[in-house]
Parts: sequence; structure tokens; C-alpha cells
Amino acid sequence: MADEPTKILLDESELPTHWYNVVADLPAPPPPPLHPGTHEPIGPDALAPLFPMSLIEQEVSGERYIEIPEAVREVYKLWRPSPLYRARRLEQLLDTPARIYFKYEGVSPAGSHKPNTAVPQAYYNAEAGVTKLTTETGAGQWGSALAFACAQYGIDLEVWQVAASFAQKPYRASMMRTWGARVHASPSELTEAGRAILAQDPDSPGSLGIAISEAVEAAMADEATKYALGSVLNHVLLHQTVIGEEALKQLAKVGEQPDLIVGCTGGGSNFAGLFFPFLREKLAGNMDPHILAVEPAACPSLTKGEYRYDFGDVAGMTPLMKMHTLGHDFIPDPIHAGGLRYHGMSPLISHMYELDLFEAEAIDQMTSFEAGVTFARTQGIVPAPEPTVALAAAIREAQACKETGEEKVILTALCGHGHFDMAAYDAYFAGELRDYDYPEAKVAEAMARVPVIAG
Amino acid sequence: MADEPTKILLDESELPTHWYNVVADLPAPPPPPLHPGTHEPIGPDALAPLFPMSLIEQEVSGERYIEIPEAVREVYKLWRPSPLYRARRLEQLLDTPARIYFKYEGVSPAGSHKPNTAVPQAYYNAEAGVTKLTTETGAGQWGSALAFACAQYGIDLEVWQVAASFAQKPYRASMMRTWGARVHASPSELTEAGRAILAQDPDSPGSLGIAISEAVEAAMADEATKYALGSVLNHVLLHQTVIGEEALKQLAKVGEQPDLIVGCTGGGSNFAGLFFPFLREKLAGNMDPHILAVEPAACPSLTKGEYRYDFGDVAGMTPLMKMHTLGHDFIPDPIHAGGLRYHGMSPLISHMYELDLFEAEAIDQMTSFEAGVTFARTQGIVPAPEPTVALAAAIREAQACKETGEEKVILTALCGHGHFDMAAYDAYFAGELRDYDYPEAKVAEAMARVPVIAG
Repeated sequence: MADEPTKILLDESELPTHWYNVVADLPAPPPPPLHPGTHEPIGPDALAPLFPMSLIEQEVSGERYIEIPEAVREVYKLWRPSPLYRARRLEQLLDTPARIYFKYEGVSPAGSHKPNTAVPQAYYNAEAGVTKLTTETGAGQWGSALAFACAQYGIDLEVWQVAASFAQKPYRASMMRTWGARVHASPSELTEAGRAILAQDPDSPGSLGIAISEAVEAAMADEATKYALGSVLNHVLLHQTVIGEEALKQLAKVGEQPDLIVGCTGGGSNFAGLFFPFLREKLAGNMDPHILAVEPAACPSLTKGEYRYDFGDVAGMTPLMKMHTLGHDFIPDPIHAGGLRYHGMSPLISHMYELDLFEAEAIDQMTSFEAGVTFARTQGIVPAPEPTVALAAAIREAQACKETGEEKVILTALCGHGHFDMAAYDAYFAGELRDYDYPEAKVAEAMARVPVIAG
Repeated sequence: MADEPTKILLDESELPTHWYNVVADLPAPPPPPLHPGTHEPIGPDALAPLFPMSLIEQEVSGERYIEIPEAVREVYKLWRPSPLYRARRLEQLLDTPARIYFKYEGVSPAGSHKPNTAVPQAYYNAEAGVTKLTTETGAGQWGSALAFACAQYGIDLEVWQVAASFAQKPYRASMMRTWGARVHASPSELTEAGRAILAQDPDSPGSLGIAISEAVEAAMADEATKYALGSVLNHVLLHQTVIGEEALKQLAKVGEQPDLIVGCTGGGSNFAGLFFPFLREKLAGNMDPHILAVEPAACPSLTKGEYRYDFGDVAGMTPLMKMHTLGHDFIPDPIHAGGLRYHGMSPLISHMYELDLFEAEAIDQMTSFEAGVTFARTQGIVPAPEPTVALAAAIREAQACKETGEEKVILTALCGHGHFDMAAYDAYFAGELRDYDYPEAKVAEAMARVPVIAG
């Protein structure tokens, strides 16, 4: 045991040189986004007010590999390649013949996988002469990742953070300010969208949908300002493939191939980043892992949502995207895995789910937190609530191996640490957390408000 | 530039096999601790009610190298060897010919260097059949490190945390609970010492001195329970030398030798861990670094304190130790580098300061926070307040190199991240922080209460 490494590390010279675009290996690309008014497919130009052309090209690209610019690789090296861990102490506790590996993204400055896309997004904007970005954030994972990235390329950043989170979880905003961003509670008096909400309800707690509206409005109001999004879109998933490319090399170093790949899904970018490169190898016949997405039972877009066109935001301002959705104005129950509380699934991942390229299941909050605590006490790292849904599935599978004697190789992604989520652990230990039944009636109501579109 | 690494990593096979005991290379060991009543030197047996014999042997050992048990190395591998970073983005901002390296201990599960000693302390206690430990903690760095360590060896842990910190910084206690520890606000009703304070002042905010008394009392009350301390003592400094041993190997990998080693000092364990192995090489004539301790101007035990026998705690219950002290009941101004707010300096480091083996200076709080923000915006990592005093000195020296053209190699230790200290950054940006003059009168008053002892 002493000879087998706990952490499998890569040299900086082994940092991937290219992102992998899974679209190139699919029988068909995902259905195009539609204009919210005309319901006609929109072209790249429609996105130009919000994103620089280089990112729009990545969004619609069919190229298999896209080169990572040297200036992005230099910033990645502040924390990448990230370690792949063998969870040997967890295996010992479970007394399982399974071998559990986890790719740890919490080593990034912002403590999650989000900087993998924040950095190239800031870079391409800077390259295009953009001097300011706007974005929205909920609990603050994405906002802090983009604040870090903007500091690296001298871009100003203005963040609209959902007011309830701004008040309850102030330290993510502190982090954003430390990296030089300005942070506003949303709804704010700074935009028409915000003022309209405040006129109706001066004490509005805000929502991600409102914050998106404010950030988009602020970006549209100024030529040199653009907007950035932290999940869901193709270019975001593309950037995250550095996770899986590294993990492929790391497992190869110890002569392993995964039998099971399991990741948590909210918008889907962390799961995509992990499994896309492994799927490429599977499609090429080089390995045959079972691939499993795990979502929270309170917000099960893949396992319960319909696959149809819907809006990305509550207010219905974004293009219509074909995806697994619970309805764009569905408000999930208040589970602590805030990053998984999204009504829809990435259109690309949804498309791939329809192609039966992976499976999905939903797991309860209490089971997830129990897994998180077990993980923390054995492996040390206190996980963010989001990846605990995948840890719970990994632990269950490892326990099953104890019954069958199977030496299964399980790979999961620990997408972030829980240093800014300790209040959730407090609530768990205080007995204040609970499971939520699937809100069938609430989803049905929300789905009734989704526009009906042919195709 | 693209070829030179940002992070210099070691394989787990390069993890040090031995701790380095600097006492072996000094002309004389530090003066012995004295009994608080008789003022006679105390022997190892006097410490046996509190510590297992293996740790007491390390405390008084003159052996140059002490082997790290395999079971400790296995837990170290959860995060060690820790990375050595070249701070190239900071160098670019400063436009300096200096090369700045920092050894980053924030990768540990608890986010600081404290687990380097918490893990062996828990291990040796478990080996001796101890089933429970007690300790005190202020802001919670040490308490959380020991909670993590105790979870690895199945030891129960009870922590008394200073009540003011328990209320103002709840998330370190959440972390301790996540790892399975019980945490009490101190003063508590659970000990005689606590009840006595509460009888006088039911709203007492507590102090480290009171918390020590409670933890020691609880350990003394039960045969199978012992006590653990996170800094100051020789065995603690010994365990921290893994930092410097790794850094020596890492710098050698890139063909560098330090011209300046700069570390922050509170109790002294992080600074000791970094510089002891380099001092060994210096004494052997293998290199000639300038070695600099930096302390906060509000609590300058090395630069302003007297070198004489004093107590380690406010209440005067510990053995008397010869050290640089500001007086055992001196209460420092409320700077945010809480880990550096200690009235005394480790006796071993104090002894070495008297031997002119390194230099020391004090730096103001505002200068330190400015350095911390500059560091965060260039290197990404948000530093804990404690190491920012050393970063401030490193930045100043690098700026001086710009004037002189000197290509100085500067090595510092970033002993932890600031994820649990964001309120301090908030206060900095809100303009609520300030510098504190050296409290000369308050120190003189405290020193008047230090017992006068010959020798």
C-alpha cells in the first residue's frame, strides 16, 4: 500500500494543449437555439452583443479539438493539472474491493471547477478588446471564479448576486471584492429590470432569473461590456474537458481504466468536463465505462424533466433551447446543493442523454450529506454540497462491490470544497435538513407555462 | 517562461522520512522549563499527565533526525508533499528581477500548516492507547487541524474555543464538528475553571488563557484523556520541519538557493518549519541565506519583548519558559492575524534569536493587508491574514531588487488560505482596519507582573 500513490499528479508539461469538442463525435449536433419571439433558429450573430466572436465560434464549432491559448495555459498552471486522488481511506472504511478515484477541482483559487471556463472566457474577451464583463451569481461560485479570472487579464467585473445569497453567504462576495470585482445584491436600483422588481416588492429576495436580466441589461447598455455565463452552453462544457483529459492521463499512469464514471449535474458542466474525454475513448472502443449522472431528487431535470424547447431564465428573455426541463419558472425546494438548483439541463448533455450515451439517477439530500461527512472524515477534504450527490452514488456502488467481490474502478469528480458551505453542514448536524419529495404538481404547473414549439 | 514551472511538485516517494531536530546543531539547548511553584527545572515526568511519553521524548530529544512513522506519512500524503510555487505573476506586477518562491500549506484539509503536527500528535496518542484528546483554540485553525487528525486515528476530541471567536467565526467550529469533534464555547459550565469565570462574568468573551485552563483541566480529570498544543513547544516545531525539508528539495530541482528566507511568527511553528532545515545547510556551509522573522507591529514579541522566564498562559498555570515575552497577561490589540496574537515566542526560537541565527522585524496591519490583496489578485490564492506580514516583507525586498537590479531568490511560506477570514478582508475594504502603535505602556504594565527569576 505504501508504494501506491495517494495522489496521482501530472507535470505542468502534461497540461492538456487542447479542449475536446464532443460534438465532433456525435451522430448529429444538438438542435439549434431558437429566437424567443420568432421561434426561428438563431445564428451566431444574434449572440454577438453578449459574447466575443471567438467564444461564439466555439459555441457552434464542429472541430474535434480546439487549442488552449498559451496565455490561458499560463493561468491554468496556477492550480492545474489538478490532482487525481485514490480514496484509499474511504475504501478501507467501506471495506470494499472497489478502487475509488476522485478528480479534485477544489485546488483552484476559487475552490471549484468554475475557473476552468472563467479563465478562457476572460482571456477571449480581453483579446477582443472588452474592458468590462457582467455576470450573475447565486451562492457565488461562478461570480468568484470569474472575479479571479478577470483579475488575471485586467478586466473590470460587475456581478449581480441573488439578494438572498448576498445576505446569507457574504463571504463569496468578499472573495469577489478581494479579486477586484464590484458586487451588487440583485434586484438592484442599477438596472431597469431591477428597479421594476423593486417597485413591486422592495424586499424581493431576488432569483437567478432576475440577476441574469440585470447582468444582460448592463452588458447590452455599453459597447465595451460583454456578458459571461458559467454553465449550460457548449463553449463552457468545452473548456471543462481539461478535467477529463487530465484524468485520462492520470489513470493511465497507474494502469487503470474506469468501470464507472459518476458525476453530479446541475447545469452539467462539471459532469461534462469529466466524462466527455472518456466517452470519446469509449466510442473509439478503447474502454467501456458505465457513465452515470447524479442529480438531486428535489431538482431532477434529467430523470423527470421533459426534453423540449424552453427558456434558460425565469423571465423568458434568453433564446429557446431544447433541453430536459422542469419548466423555466420552476423554483426548486431549498436544498443546500445550490449549484444544482437549475430547472434545465445543458442542451448538449440533454441531447446526449436522448442518444443513450449515459444514464442518470436522482439522490436525496440526506443521503448526500451523509456521504459528504463520511468522505470528510476519511479523506480529509470537506466537500461542497454539490458533489456529495455523486459521492453518495460512488459509495453505494463501492458497497455493492463488497457484496459481489467485484474490483470495480470508480471515478468521480470532486468539483469543489465546502469552505463556503459550512452553514449547510451546521444545519445537517442540527437536524434541520430533510429530504424533499419530487414536486410533481409544481413541475406540472411550471411545464404548462412552457411555450409549445413544433420539433 | 513557458518552460519554467509555476509549481514545483514532489512525488509522494520524495516525502521526507525524518523530521529535523535543530537542537542537535545548536551550541547549547534552550534553557529548561521551570516548575511554576518551585522555579526548579522540571523533568519529562512532569509532563506525563498531559502528553504521551513518545511526544515528551521528542520535546527533550537531542537527536538530529527523528523518523516519521509510516502511519503518519500515509496521512501526510492526503496533501503532502505540498507545492512550492514560483510567484511569477507577482514578480511581473512588481517588475522585479527577484525570483519569489512560496511554499503553500493551504492545500491541507484544514487549510493551514497545523495538520503537520496535529497528525503525529494524534498518532502518538493513539499508539499510547489514548482515546480522547482535549485542546483549546482561538479562531479555530488549530482546533480544526486536530479534529481532522483525530478523525484519522479514531480519537475523540473535545475543543474549547474562545467564546468571542465561537460566536463571530462559527464556520471553523462547523468544520471541527464535520470531522467529529465536540466544540464548546469557553468559558463553559463543563469545568471548574470555566464555572469560576462565568460566576464572575456570565457574558465573558473568553480568552486563550481561559480555554487552555479548561482543556487542561478536562484532560487531567480522566486517565485515558490527554491534551495537545498546536505551537510553541519543541516537538511541534520539529513536526513542522517537513515544510523546509520539502522546500529544500524543491528549490534544488530548479537549481536555486534562497538569498532570503522570510516567514511570519506568532508562536513560531510555521517559521521554524520553513527555516530550520535551511539553517542546517547554512551552518554546514552549503548556502548562505539571510533569514528573517516578521511579526505584527501590534504584538512584537521578538523585536520588543524581553528574553526571560514567563508563563505560557494568562492564568500562570503552565511551566515557566525562557522566551521573548510581552508579559503573560498582555492582551494584544485586535489585529486580524489572530494566529499571531500571542504574548510569547517559542522558547527554542527565542533561544536561537539570542544566538543571532536569524533577524526579526515588525510590520503594520495595513501594509500586510495591502500585500495580501496584491498577492490574491496576481497569484489567485487569497492568503490568511497571518502570512500577509511575511508577504509584505517579501514584496518590499523584491521592490528593492528593482532598484538594485539584484536577482535575489526570496523564499516565503504561505501557511494558509483565507477562506475562513473573509470578514477581515471585508473590514479592510470597508476602511475599518487600522494600524496600532506599539503599546509600550501596556507591555510595561504586563512585564511588571512577570515573576523575577534568577538565570
